[in-house]
Amino acid sequence: MKLIRYGSLGQEKIGVQIDTKNYDLSSFREDYNEQFFENDGVERLKAFIKENASELKEIPAGSRLGAPIARPSKIVCIGLNYLDHATETGAAIPKEPIIFFKSTTSVVGPFDDIMLPKGSEKTDWEVEFGVVIGKTARYVEETNALAHVAGYVLINDVSEREFQLERGGTWDKGKGCDTFAPMGPYLVTADEMPDTSNVGLWLSVNGKMYQNGNTKNLIFSVPELIAYVSKFMTLLPGDVISTGTPAGVGLGFKPPIYLKEGDVVELGADGLGVAKQTVVAFNL
Amino acid sequence: MKLIRYGSLGQEKIGVQIDTKNYDLSSFREDYNEQFFENDGVERLKAFIKENASELKEIPAGSRLGAPIARPSKIVCIGLNYLDHATETGAAIPKEPIIFFKSTTSVVGPFDDIMLPKGSEKTDWEVEFGVVIGKTARYVEETNALAHVAGYVLINDVSEREFQLERGGTWDKGKGCDTFAPMGPYLVTADEMPDTSNVGLWLSVNGKMYQNGNTKNLIFSVPELIAYVSKFMTLLPGDVISTGTPAGVGLGFKPPIYLKEGDVVELGADGLGVAKQTVVAFNL
Repeated sequence: MKLIRYGSLGQEKIGVQIDTKNYDLSSFREDYNEQFFENDGVERLKAFIKENASELKEIPAGSRLGAPIARPSKIVCIGLNYLDHATETGAAIPKEPIIFFKSTTSVVGPFDDIMLPKGSEKTDWEVEFGVVIGKTARYVEETNALAHVAGYVLINDVSEREFQLERGGTWDKGKGCDTFAPMGPYLVTADEMPDTSNVGLWLSVNGKMYQNGNTKNLIFSVPELIAYVSKFMTLLPGDVISTGTPAGVGLGFKPPIYLKEGDVVELGADGLGVAKQTVVAFNL
Repeated sequence: MKLIRYGSLGQEKIGVQIDTKNYDLSSFREDYNEQFFENDGVERLKAFIKENASELKEIPAGSRLGAPIARPSKIVCIGLNYLDHATETGAAIPKEPIIFFKSTTSVVGPFDDIMLPKGSEKTDWEVEFGVVIGKTARYVEETNALAHVAGYVLINDVSEREFQLERGGTWDKGKGCDTFAPMGPYLVTADEMPDTSNVGLWLSVNGKMYQNGNTKNLIFSVPELIAYVSKFMTLLPGDVISTGTPAGVGLGFKPPIYLKEGDVVELGADGLGVAKQTVVAFNL
């Protein structure tokens, strides 16, 4: 299944995409959140859709798509997890996964605007393959890790490089600004993507392709990451692991290229759909 | 007011402490969460207590105290924010606040056990003065920052130093393990603590005093921190800023001193009460 959420930010209703059409499922009366995933929501929803197939209604034309999951307890990000990206940033190849967090207040929908933080001159893009946890993961084994996955989602790990790298402290400062985590268009359930080791992903700015990678080049694979992260914290149903970005971010160019008002970012991944964000000044 | 939560982990009911006695307020039918704080919960609760003063019942004897707030959207921590602590760790004095996150799955009650992560040999303590946000804070001015505070809480920012400092990447890896954020015993509402610039705080292990500091030695004050953090992310009602720890952590000793099974950690702060945690092996 391809799970979607639609409606205004913070007021999203749930739905499902079938054959490129988006259908409302608000009569299911749940959100795609911790409780939903914890209580076998995906299976229950599948049965619900089957039972109600003839009555499904398309969502209103022009509806905004939200992130396909409700606000998670955490967004765990993996740094420098593609060899080519580690190289372009001048960083050492990590011996074990680098973990940082995005604040969950940074989550927006796949077609929402990216707002430049006030004073920002170094806002950058990062297309990523995102994993959504389905069952509580705590000291899980790599061989059993994928059993803890609900599905996968496309993420733009928007990053302010000055905040991240030049303002002291950890990367978190440049990763959690409002609108810095566009997610979607949909969550594809794990049963529809049995192989996470060969997923192409790309990102363009103003029509020019900057990133064009594949999860086959991940230094640490999806199962390795789930097992690894679960040694340092408990992953709850609905939590997200964003697995890192391939080469081609703005920081990697000489001189670096950063986003400015009016820029249009498009990104996509095999099986995870396509998203598009316009860069605007901060307006909240 | 002194807000408390009691009952089993994840099933806490709300209450209030009056003259050292804890009273149940579950008939108020809310939790101390984002919605509560956002909708003037503190003021509404104050009126509720006044109206129902004669009917308040003490909580059952022997009840477990939980963290005095429901799981927040984020716990923002400030690193090296006391001169003496920065010096003891051998770190440079920060030019601006260092930000990192604790995962919200690390929150437990003030008298719960601290579980050593599997394989941990460097679990350390950090008594901290915690700020609980009351109103959404986004680009707030320092002069107006305290208007965004619901209250204050005692926090033990438990830290695994090997995970934090020797395993690559950011500090987050050593900060968010299960049970690494005991909070409480209570949240004291902001009206009862108009001055946050002269709060003594201390921590002992097995009866020996290790930390004995005062917020007057904060490098960056509470209003400065709220204003600063709100430039990098939106703080939601119920979110926590943990403002850093004074000197005397285990890492600062030569050789370092770390927690082991059976150790008893006691901590307290002026106006924020006293907490006590026993160190045990991981048992989830």
